[in-house]
Amino acid sequence: MDALGNAASAARRARTMLLLVWTLLNAVSGLKADDGGMVEELVTEKEAEESHRQDSVNLLTFISLLTLTILTIWLFKHRRVRFLHETGLAMIYGLLVGVILRYGIPATSYHNKTPPSCSLKEGPSSTLLLNISGKFFEYTLKGEINFREIHNVEQNDMLRKVTFDPEVFFNILLPPIIFHAGYSLKKRHFFRNLGSIITYAFLGTAISCFVIGNLMYGVVKLMRAVGQLTEKFYYTDCLFFGAIISATDPVTVLAIFNELHADGDLYALLFGESVMNDAVAIVLSSSIVAYQPAGANTHMFDASAFFKSVGIFLGIFSGSFVMGAATGVVTALVTKFTKLHCFPLLETALFFLMSWSTFLLAEACGFTGVVAVLFCGITQAHYTSNNLSEESTKRTKQLFEVLHFLAENFIFSYMGLALFTFQKHIFSPIFIIGAFVAIFIGRALNIYPLSFLLNLGRRDKIRGNFQHMMMFAGLRGAMAFALAIRDTATSARQMMFTTTLLIVFFTVWVFGGGTTPMLSWLHISYRYWNCKRFQDERRCHGKWEYSRVGVDPDQDLQPSGDSFQVLQGDGNQDEGQSKTKQESAWLFRLWYTFDHNYLKPILTHSGPPLTSTLPSYCGPLASCLTSPRAYENHEQLRDPDTDLIHNDADLTFTFGDTAITTNGASASRADATGGLGWSTNGKRSGSTSEEALERELDSREQELLSRGTRLVFPMEDHI
Amino acid sequence: MDALGNAASAARRARTMLLLVWTLLNAVSGLKADDGGMVEELVTEKEAEESHRQDSVNLLTFISLLTLTILTIWLFKHRRVRFLHETGLAMIYGLLVGVILRYGIPATSYHNKTPPSCSLKEGPSSTLLLNISGKFFEYTLKGEINFREIHNVEQNDMLRKVTFDPEVFFNILLPPIIFHAGYSLKKRHFFRNLGSIITYAFLGTAISCFVIGNLMYGVVKLMRAVGQLTEKFYYTDCLFFGAIISATDPVTVLAIFNELHADGDLYALLFGESVMNDAVAIVLSSSIVAYQPAGANTHMFDASAFFKSVGIFLGIFSGSFVMGAATGVVTALVTKFTKLHCFPLLETALFFLMSWSTFLLAEACGFTGVVAVLFCGITQAHYTSNNLSEESTKRTKQLFEVLHFLAENFIFSYMGLALFTFQKHIFSPIFIIGAFVAIFIGRALNIYPLSFLLNLGRRDKIRGNFQHMMMFAGLRGAMAFALAIRDTATSARQMMFTTTLLIVFFTVWVFGGGTTPMLSWLHISYRYWNCKRFQDERRCHGKWEYSRVGVDPDQDLQPSGDSFQVLQGDGNQDEGQSKTKQESAWLFRLWYTFDHNYLKPILTHSGPPLTSTLPSYCGPLASCLTSPRAYENHEQLRDPDTDLIHNDADLTFTFGDTAITTNGASASRADATGGLGWSTNGKRSGSTSEEALERELDSREQELLSRGTRLVFPMEDHI
Repeated sequence: MDALGNAASAARRARTMLLLVWTLLNAVSGLKADDGGMVEELVTEKEAEESHRQDSVNLLTFISLLTLTILTIWLFKHRRVRFLHETGLAMIYGLLVGVILRYGIPATSYHNKTPPSCSLKEGPSSTLLLNISGKFFEYTLKGEINFREIHNVEQNDMLRKVTFDPEVFFNILLPPIIFHAGYSLKKRHFFRNLGSIITYAFLGTAISCFVIGNLMYGVVKLMRAVGQLTEKFYYTDCLFFGAIISATDPVTVLAIFNELHADGDLYALLFGESVMNDAVAIVLSSSIVAYQPAGANTHMFDASAFFKSVGIFLGIFSGSFVMGAATGVVTALVTKFTKLHCFPLLETALFFLMSWSTFLLAEACGFTGVVAVLFCGITQAHYTSNNLSEESTKRTKQLFEVLHFLAENFIFSYMGLALFTFQKHIFSPIFIIGAFVAIFIGRALNIYPLSFLLNLGRRDKIRGNFQHMMMFAGLRGAMAFALAIRDTATSARQMMFTTTLLIVFFTVWVFGGGTTPMLSWLHISYRYWNCKRFQDERRCHGKWEYSRVGVDPDQDLQPSGDSFQVLQGDGNQDEGQSKTKQESAWLFRLWYTFDHNYLKPILTHSGPPLTSTLPSYCGPLASCLTSPRAYENHEQLRDPDTDLIHNDADLTFTFGDTAITTNGASASRADATGGLGWSTNGKRSGSTSEEALERELDSREQELLSRGTRLVFPMEDHI
Repeated sequence: MDALGNAASAARRARTMLLLVWTLLNAVSGLKADDGGMVEELVTEKEAEESHRQDSVNLLTFISLLTLTILTIWLFKHRRVRFLHETGLAMIYGLLVGVILRYGIPATSYHNKTPPSCSLKEGPSSTLLLNISGKFFEYTLKGEINFREIHNVEQNDMLRKVTFDPEVFFNILLPPIIFHAGYSLKKRHFFRNLGSIITYAFLGTAISCFVIGNLMYGVVKLMRAVGQLTEKFYYTDCLFFGAIISATDPVTVLAIFNELHADGDLYALLFGESVMNDAVAIVLSSSIVAYQPAGANTHMFDASAFFKSVGIFLGIFSGSFVMGAATGVVTALVTKFTKLHCFPLLETALFFLMSWSTFLLAEACGFTGVVAVLFCGITQAHYTSNNLSEESTKRTKQLFEVLHFLAENFIFSYMGLALFTFQKHIFSPIFIIGAFVAIFIGRALNIYPLSFLLNLGRRDKIRGNFQHMMMFAGLRGAMAFALAIRDTATSARQMMFTTTLLIVFFTVWVFGGGTTPMLSWLHISYRYWNCKRFQDERRCHGKWEYSRVGVDPDQDLQPSGDSFQVLQGDGNQDEGQSKTKQESAWLFRLWYTFDHNYLKPILTHSGPPLTSTLPSYCGPLASCLTSPRAYENHEQLRDPDTDLIHNDADLTFTFGDTAITTNGASASRADATGGLGWSTNGKRSGSTSEEALERELDSREQELLSRGTRLVFPMEDHI
């Protein structure tokens, strides 16, 4: 049954198509133009029109839902309501409409007659030919139906239509969300915490998956013992549930973090973890599915099959990674070596197409498109965005922002709707309670032990309150839902789907809504800018004050500049570091130097000219690959006045190696930099404060790097 | 047969769904999640994967095509190549790939066995049940197939897949193109020539449709006489062909006009005509289809059915118009009365959703979505865009620009591909030659007689060379193709499709490529800015020179300020006008005053405050409806120094009532205005020169209007 379900899932995957246009082209079951010829349809025109209208009305429902959500979000933002995030709101509206659709509208049907039937002895095939007095008609398999449903095949049509194909989520709605996550990644904090993020994402998700899987297997056994479960529910099903429910999505929490300017490192940890663990969960769940047929009838644990599964996991993951990175690199090269930046429209279109083609390329090669898109996004942000014209940088960002916004809210309002319109829910109280307990245990066994291990190696420890916050921020969202809805063929899967839906509701509403109180309660610092003018127009270039709420300044300001110091070659001043730490630092340094000296100059207009980083015998090649703009940039960077930044306090606890108290230092340094001129700020006033800050920090970093080769430290300016 | 074809077309229309996501949901023939239960599929996993990959590869083909097109377009723009437009280029690449797909790749198939067949006595229905040892499977009709094709049902699968469903064009690719056309309409020139545009679009397209239809009926009779035609080809088919081929699409010509800054009025005439006649052609063709069943077996001309058809035409057209305008108005109201402009992302998303919902709403009500989207675009540009934040204005514009660009190039490269991959081409030399002759005659009988009639009423005549240019610019493009591919069930329709494709190729390549030589040959003025700096950054705010190529300045500068003069109440100075002219001016004046005094203030933040335009007893209501920003704007407009513009020469021959020679006047006026200050220019440097100019002209117009009430004419400044 499971093998069949699996095959059915694969078939669905293939049949429904992977994306936007193509899904249309191929999947459309109707009459294709090229079926052409003398197609005779007995469906009357009126019926067809009716169905067409019904579809329009259905989609209008969703659009109205989204419109309503947008208006309410505005109201909430306007009134500074923080207890309910837009995604939670979208779900509530979805629920309401779901209730109306389910109970408010009588299940009308415009076509009540039982369709003709015919008998065959062989099993069903995907295509069937019907011979009617010498004429042949081609039919495609839609699925098996229950005998009791035969007489209302077309009844409840509306509900069926509203509950649409799950592959839509995977192939249309998730890619823009995931790409945007990768593209809008705040590089500095992310790369600084890369090791921890990867640990949480890979090891943590694996732990969570196995813990939840095993606990749920216990729950399933209990259910069977109590007589609550008669259907099949294998161990691999439990593991699968563990995998899908391990994909965290703290979108609500992060939105509030963003608004409150909560700690950058905590933000990076949470965001990075959730982005990466989506990728891990999707590959993990498909490895588990791939593992199933090997486990054949037993569906029990089997060492060789397990390692095969791990191999599959690594293969798919690294393949997708390479695919995504490669597309990003190609785009970077194309945008570098053409003067496409004179035509922002062409540039944006190219960028969009290349990013999209990653998805296709990965799917065509049998890898995971969504994962490839994530890494493509990161690569594009790291390299390509340096080559784009200023206008295109904005355009692409905005384009993906809009797509991401729409897709996300669509998924969440769909979730609300699905609770009532999905017709195969299995509400099993024991399973649901078990799952709730399991995800907390799973999350706890992910965060606390790993944090302990990581703290052994980290110089700026992940403090207890950060760990509690990470534990608390383990919300489930779009990815868990998309994975759960992907296959609901067996009753086990239906039970999982229902449970996932409830977990998403609960975590988004309760944990999402509780973020602000939790931050205060855990004494996690967040600063709100006291400078009022800054909020509207970023005209506030003078001194800033910021308030830190309930935090010990010394603790918060532990020096954390390791990555940078290491890069400068004097990271090994601190002898108390463990070997692991040094190795990872060495690896990281190697990569960073390579990236900065070779990759960036080759792929982008920024970075030092290759002529200065490559050995002299590579001269001609180097000057051929270095763009004229790189020289300009390089010259500009040598000028100490060009690229100074606001956020010096932040810089202090990033790059500074000595612990200084915040207030004194930040104020005085703000004065010092404030006096040096703000030549670049005028240009950037269009962007939002967040990204401007980020970009300035990045450019500061660049500047420091190029100055670092002369060993001029920012501190020296100050002293 | 035709009735059946018609029903089939309607069924296809319904089945394939109208848009993006929804098409997916519903049309997807595969296993829906909620078909759920115990779906058993015999399609093996491997097969499914293979098909999935094949699809990815197919779509990658299109993406690569588009990428290649973009890169070549860049090269062409870079090198200033004008003989081949991007759309022509996309077609060439499409052709090449089509040849490769058709002849280069052996028709492999992963599934060669003949599918099982079963017999029934009754006719085919849309749904079929298959009973296999007690289990029921649901099948959907895909279409009839020829007996000889039974053994390779799945062969040539690739070609079939590449040639995808025509409804995709209608429901996904056309709406953004049409919306963008409406949204980017250059209002001033468009409204100034509104009467002429409507005449060409409605009357002209009808003339063209009937002329072509009748000529083609002659050709068909000839073919039958020669023995070239054995299949059925009714008179209504000929009329249908006339309707679809009457949709002009001078995208190539207009791109060159834009680049060369060719005459604004000619641009407006061509652009306006092509936009409106797309709408007319689509409604006309569907009215003709609706007329067919009434004509039953005769398919001959029948007065009552004809008037019914006209009624349908008017009903659909006005319904779609109202629908589109209504959505635009609602969006304007929502954006006015909320402070959504603080959150550009929400604003953009709302704008996008509302514009999209127009399409759905119209389709749900049985009107034409594409037409509704056009008028929605115009309304959004006229009202809503005044309420959007500066960032959203840009965002929405850019979003639709990118969508439009991608959709258009996709259609054109698909056209190239279709010439080889579409499998039911019927190349009939007589029909093709006849069609080429007919479209020229049709176009000529549209342009010349109507121009003559219009010139009776117009003060600035449409000169002979303009008429020749309009004749020459009668290219066929995306809309003709989309209408032709929509139904290719009968051999008549297949013949039309092939012919349409060839006409598109010919006109885009030959006429599109010949635009620049033709402009010179016809002595139509185009100016290229001599101010070099202007081209890069719009930093050039001083005096401008522009060169006019081969034109008599007096002739070009005929006073054409009627609309404005009439508005001021002294338009009837000129006694030589015909009555029609005065009536239309009266209507136009009425509308303009109403729009300016009531609609704009109610719907947007601009225009005079309602408190000043509404009678005093409406005071409370007026002040409630007027936004605070309107007062601010109003104050600003009273200041004569705020909103002066560059393009005074243009203004002269728009608003000036006395004929003055260009050079002297423009130079001196440019001096005069140049001295008054350019307070607004700094803000606008981000936009392209064209739109900035347009916007400035519009604001100038507004200013003049508000000043006009005090009867302060621009001339007075100068004197």
